[in-house]
Amino acid sequence: MKKLTSIPGSIVAAQGFLACGVFCDIKRLGTGKGSNKGKKRDLALIVSEVPASVAGMFTTNQICAAPVKVCAQQVKGGVAHAIVVNSGNANACTGRQGMKDALEMTALAGEALHVPATQIFVASTGRIGVTMPMENVRAGIRDAAQLLGNATEHADEAAEAIMTSDTKPKQVAIEFQLGGKTVRIGGICKGAGMIQPGMSATGARPPAAPAGLHATMLCFITTDAAIAAKPLHAALQEAVANSFNRITVDGDMSTNDTVLVLANGLAGNATLTPESPDFAIFQNALSHVCLELAKKIVRDGEGVTRFVTVRVTGAKSFADADAAARAVANSSLVKTSWFGGDPNWGRIIDALGYSAATVVEDKVDIGYSAPGSRKILYSLKRGQPTKATFKDLCAAVAAREFDLHINLHLGTAGALMYAADLTEEYVEFNKGDVSDPTTLGG
Amino acid sequence: MKKLTSIPGSIVAAQGFLACGVFCDIKRLGTGKGSNKGKKRDLALIVSEVPASVAGMFTTNQICAAPVKVCAQQVKGGVAHAIVVNSGNANACTGRQGMKDALEMTALAGEALHVPATQIFVASTGRIGVTMPMENVRAGIRDAAQLLGNATEHADEAAEAIMTSDTKPKQVAIEFQLGGKTVRIGGICKGAGMIQPGMSATGARPPAAPAGLHATMLCFITTDAAIAAKPLHAALQEAVANSFNRITVDGDMSTNDTVLVLANGLAGNATLTPESPDFAIFQNALSHVCLELAKKIVRDGEGVTRFVTVRVTGAKSFADADAAARAVANSSLVKTSWFGGDPNWGRIIDALGYSAATVVEDKVDIGYSAPGSRKILYSLKRGQPTKATFKDLCAAVAAREFDLHINLHLGTAGALMYAADLTEEYVEFNKGDVSDPTTLGG
Repeated sequence: MKKLTSIPGSIVAAQGFLACGVFCDIKRLGTGKGSNKGKKRDLALIVSEVPASVAGMFTTNQICAAPVKVCAQQVKGGVAHAIVVNSGNANACTGRQGMKDALEMTALAGEALHVPATQIFVASTGRIGVTMPMENVRAGIRDAAQLLGNATEHADEAAEAIMTSDTKPKQVAIEFQLGGKTVRIGGICKGAGMIQPGMSATGARPPAAPAGLHATMLCFITTDAAIAAKPLHAALQEAVANSFNRITVDGDMSTNDTVLVLANGLAGNATLTPESPDFAIFQNALSHVCLELAKKIVRDGEGVTRFVTVRVTGAKSFADADAAARAVANSSLVKTSWFGGDPNWGRIIDALGYSAATVVEDKVDIGYSAPGSRKILYSLKRGQPTKATFKDLCAAVAAREFDLHINLHLGTAGALMYAADLTEEYVEFNKGDVSDPTTLGG
Repeated sequence: MKKLTSIPGSIVAAQGFLACGVFCDIKRLGTGKGSNKGKKRDLALIVSEVPASVAGMFTTNQICAAPVKVCAQQVKGGVAHAIVVNSGNANACTGRQGMKDALEMTALAGEALHVPATQIFVASTGRIGVTMPMENVRAGIRDAAQLLGNATEHADEAAEAIMTSDTKPKQVAIEFQLGGKTVRIGGICKGAGMIQPGMSATGARPPAAPAGLHATMLCFITTDAAIAAKPLHAALQEAVANSFNRITVDGDMSTNDTVLVLANGLAGNATLTPESPDFAIFQNALSHVCLELAKKIVRDGEGVTRFVTVRVTGAKSFADADAAARAVANSSLVKTSWFGGDPNWGRIIDALGYSAATVVEDKVDIGYSAPGSRKILYSLKRGQPTKATFKDLCAAVAAREFDLHINLHLGTAGALMYAADLTEEYVEFNKGDVSDPTTLGG
């Protein structure tokens, strides 16, 4: 596979993209004019200077936010010019007013940028069930349209503006060669709690959707590759299936999960089709960007101290492997044991046993390795404790990042999940503070 | 329905039952002879002076402990004389040695009591994956057989001996009239973490088992009613379906969940059959005992500060109602909001939306009441926030116990779950202490 080179700039790394992030007080902290310095930005604008092909994946939660409904509709047109995003308010469970507000956001951005509203995409994250403070949003969009730029700082501003409980902005950009041309892909994302996305192209549940998926995560990707909307969608679907749809922080799927990719063609490569020999190179690059961003979400999850890659192999079917990996990745008892650095295989095999996967006790292997390593220290082999010492097993799970290997020895299917531990800080953060309702999440 | 009167004595309240609980150091704390005073008892014996009809329900976890396998087999015989139970070690994931040990426990108790081993039932709870310290267990059974009695203290000892992370023993006994005779039912149970039982009669999964069920809970019930094993099983199945199978602390289903009921006929009532007019009276009484015990498990769950009855109505089907209730009852974000006393309906409707139940946003009602009350304070009506004040809603969820009412307005089916909040104390407790492996749970 062609070499992917990391570069700065995230969503403005590719040619022809502009961005910015502003503070417009969406949480209504009630600051007066001139006192906005130091406030976290809360509205971002991402713009392609030329019309771009667009593809999107959206939450499969039946309760889905107004901006998700707008995007799922508009993505059918295949063309995007810009994305307007706010944090602080999810515009979810806001009824007709919410739809009106989401559409007004596209209209305002369209006016400011002199492009059709139907080519403006919109995303929101924050509290559920509170209507948007539209006077603030209007001012924010107006300001943002004046402040667009393609310097690294502009991308930084946008990455900050989409954060909610994230402790740090999440950005990636790479470049690679495609038929003699340099192509770039960059992205930003956010998400820290209410994280176990299960996205589809339409927001409708796929027939074989894993049961009970669930954070708001938002991701925006820009590329100067030349590719039509349809193959771009195919590439995004593949990339999301192996990245965002394989992460979990707390097992709760949000009403707002959204991934959008814009491809404006300014790299000048021969337009990619699924038949192009170069398609695989693009796929690989897009998958890389999605996976790097997805992992950043888990690593920065609320209160997270461990990043665990749960690798299930030897399952009868993918559905079994997926069910087994999700049961382990979402078990409160397994997750608290990770927090404690406790190599407790009893809780792991217990979760496997109650999962929907077929599991046979005396076939199960459980072991640990450094991330990506094949040097596995087994705690259990064929259902029996190994001679590995408790001290060595503790050392394996003391690491901030490790892989958990589970072989069911019943078939050839596998699945993995990128998972986080469950900590007191997560509970402390999410119990909120009813004396200050602005701290209460959606 | 006939009046049920609370009485003392739990498992020795009914005629012809004896019990006791001893300390035999199953966790191998390494105390010497004579130093056992003050140690928590860890082995219980429950005995009927005459052969009793028996019925049982067992975990549907595919990884199931040796004692569960023994009971599931023996219950087919329909006759029980005694139950031997230990805490401190679950005898789960212990392979052939585990089966040998479980059978030896029945043999030892049988010898001591002069009854066939096949009429001795066995249950264990504690660490997973460690073989039983059989020399201690042998001594414990020997001692216990000498200390049996039918005083309230004997029941208290047994209730203490089955506890693990429980902070208090859990006991109930009632008496009622059946055809002119006084019949008594008493029970003890344990369970605090790894609690979301899904039990069936054989340990096999029923075709319509709720997905992903999961604590070790153990429950032992004694009655002097005269009833054959088959109708006793029917009554137990009904009682468990509406009690233990409707509770969740952390959503993890154990390898050891067991409910056993022994009916020895000494009350002298006309033997109950499903056709008896009195069967409904017995059913009502058994259901009451199971429900009282099940609620005690949730109230004493690890770190629990809230007991919430999630009442879903208006679902398209029972499966939908069950899926909706379980999604809400097991959502980390909903459970942390309860801990915080935050009446956050956004997290509740989010969980409904990702559940397997059909949910339509603008039909959903969400409200709160005092336990069992029909005076509901709604936060959401038909998907729209009501005019209830934040202060009043906070007051509703500040209570240690409250009912959460969810009406989907899509059908006539309903389901409820008895659920607990998720607290820092739960995390603190379950992260364990790797410097002291004896604290690490199974």
